[in-house]
Amino acid sequence: MSMDLLQEKIRQKKNPTVAGLDPRLSYIPPHILSEAYAKYGQTLRGAAEAYRLFGRGLIDALKDVVPAVKPQSAYYEVLGSAGIAVLEELCAYAKEQGLYVIMDAKRGDIGSTCEAYAAAYLGGVTVGDSTFSPFDCDAVTVNGYLGTDALRPFTALCKSRNKSIFLLVKTSNPSSRELQDLIAGDRLVSTVVADLAVRLTAKEELLGASGFSAIGAVVGATHPRDLKELRAKYPQLFFLVPGYGAQGGRAKDVQYAFDRFGHGAIVNSSRGIMCAWQKVEGNDGLDYQDRARAEALKMKKDICSYVEIL
Amino acid sequence: MSMDLLQEKIRQKKNPTVAGLDPRLSYIPPHILSEAYAKYGQTLRGAAEAYRLFGRGLIDALKDVVPAVKPQSAYYEVLGSAGIAVLEELCAYAKEQGLYVIMDAKRGDIGSTCEAYAAAYLGGVTVGDSTFSPFDCDAVTVNGYLGTDALRPFTALCKSRNKSIFLLVKTSNPSSRELQDLIAGDRLVSTVVADLAVRLTAKEELLGASGFSAIGAVVGATHPRDLKELRAKYPQLFFLVPGYGAQGGRAKDVQYAFDRFGHGAIVNSSRGIMCAWQKVEGNDGLDYQDRARAEALKMKKDICSYVEIL
Repeated sequence: MSMDLLQEKIRQKKNPTVAGLDPRLSYIPPHILSEAYAKYGQTLRGAAEAYRLFGRGLIDALKDVVPAVKPQSAYYEVLGSAGIAVLEELCAYAKEQGLYVIMDAKRGDIGSTCEAYAAAYLGGVTVGDSTFSPFDCDAVTVNGYLGTDALRPFTALCKSRNKSIFLLVKTSNPSSRELQDLIAGDRLVSTVVADLAVRLTAKEELLGASGFSAIGAVVGATHPRDLKELRAKYPQLFFLVPGYGAQGGRAKDVQYAFDRFGHGAIVNSSRGIMCAWQKVEGNDGLDYQDRARAEALKMKKDICSYVEIL
Repeated sequence: MSMDLLQEKIRQKKNPTVAGLDPRLSYIPPHILSEAYAKYGQTLRGAAEAYRLFGRGLIDALKDVVPAVKPQSAYYEVLGSAGIAVLEELCAYAKEQGLYVIMDAKRGDIGSTCEAYAAAYLGGVTVGDSTFSPFDCDAVTVNGYLGTDALRPFTALCKSRNKSIFLLVKTSNPSSRELQDLIAGDRLVSTVVADLAVRLTAKEELLGASGFSAIGAVVGATHPRDLKELRAKYPQLFFLVPGYGAQGGRAKDVQYAFDRFGHGAIVNSSRGIMCAWQKVEGNDGLDYQDRARAEALKMKKDICSYVEIL
């Protein structure tokens, strides 16, 4: 199961963190923007080229520090097909470098549409005699509001192609309470979603050798109490934890996402790492790779001061 | 408000239906596949070219019959950047032909990621001195599981750029009951979402001259009782109704989506129209445009036998 692979990569690097690849033009050092615009002008293609250079540079700087990267699809979609071409390249490049790739796309739909989403990110499409996988990620984030039948096409590929999904359980934003914290019978809506994951895991035999299901859960770092309760209640669910750093989640909060072996969770940082070069006033960004790497190492140290990975 | 524009287009054509542009290779007539593969081979690019020719052909055939088209993003995403380039072109072409374009993407995320999704489909991105809008649709479907703050970037553009969103309230699939029909306090989870839409409409002044909010709701044709109850309870919410035809929803079911003026709803058909040419055994598909058009007219007649648009 693909979640075993993620846990293994975390253990190898002794680092339970994932670097978000969520580019915006304002995050990119001027010398990269100049190079990209010189090639393609101040166009969508030019912006996409800047994302490409920045993304590859970040992957190069981080590849021996972090076990995984998480590109956020939205930032590439806003550049249209030029952005998506770069997203394809960065997924492939990160995999080549031995990184586990989590596509943060939060997709969710029904029937054949859901099959198309699952095929897009975890599978492939057959054209004539060949099958093509434009992204071929290790995992994708999924929104479960539509229920189990909207998860099945994903779990089928988890099984047949050794992939994983992360189901949105409790997100890191303030409004997450509006739906996710509602009480339905004796359960929070967020735990209803987590229960679906457990049920599907049993039904479709999705438990891996590491003890984790191929269906993981997104649980925000900004809710340490929820992290603690959900960790205790769902030992099989691997947690993807956004919200560390820029959104206010701290290492002492995210420690509750891990089990007593220091397993079962990975913590994301995006802006903190990507924009590390901007923390020094007047910095020209030529050192963005060193700064990103230093920030990733600092984050690793910070979290590992609370969590020991056995 | 953009929902006024949709209601107006529906009245002009006396047709409350939208054609889904959800291509798969198996839906496309052989002569189009041959032409596309001859140009670009049996590749993602070749498949995308087939989608392009088929999509433009459908738009040409349907443009004076239906007021709107609804491309389903998943089917283009599975072809990677080649598919997205075609999605851009089809959105632009449909708008040129006077059609209202609903991007069925079911996006939902938080903070700056949500801003990027909103910008991608309803707004634009600034590169240097220029702003680019790769899709520039009239409306996009949105998943509300993350709560109000994940809707605000969309509603800001509804207001500033005369756009709309359709929030997933009650979807047409069997598993929709697992979360959407849970009872939280005195409300179904699906009505909690609809209530959010009403509250945001008031707070951000999103009500248009036609009496409908710029925030609409997706309510499946497969749940006529829910349609009836939701119609009575939410007179301000324009309903996008999937599930007619292939999924089992009938005209006598979807009639409940409309108010007493025959306003406030639009019913989608995708496969029924796209694959109409396949209903005649042995058909070579050279007549796919005529078949699609005839099917769209049949659907209009079917629904208008229950609904009179004043």
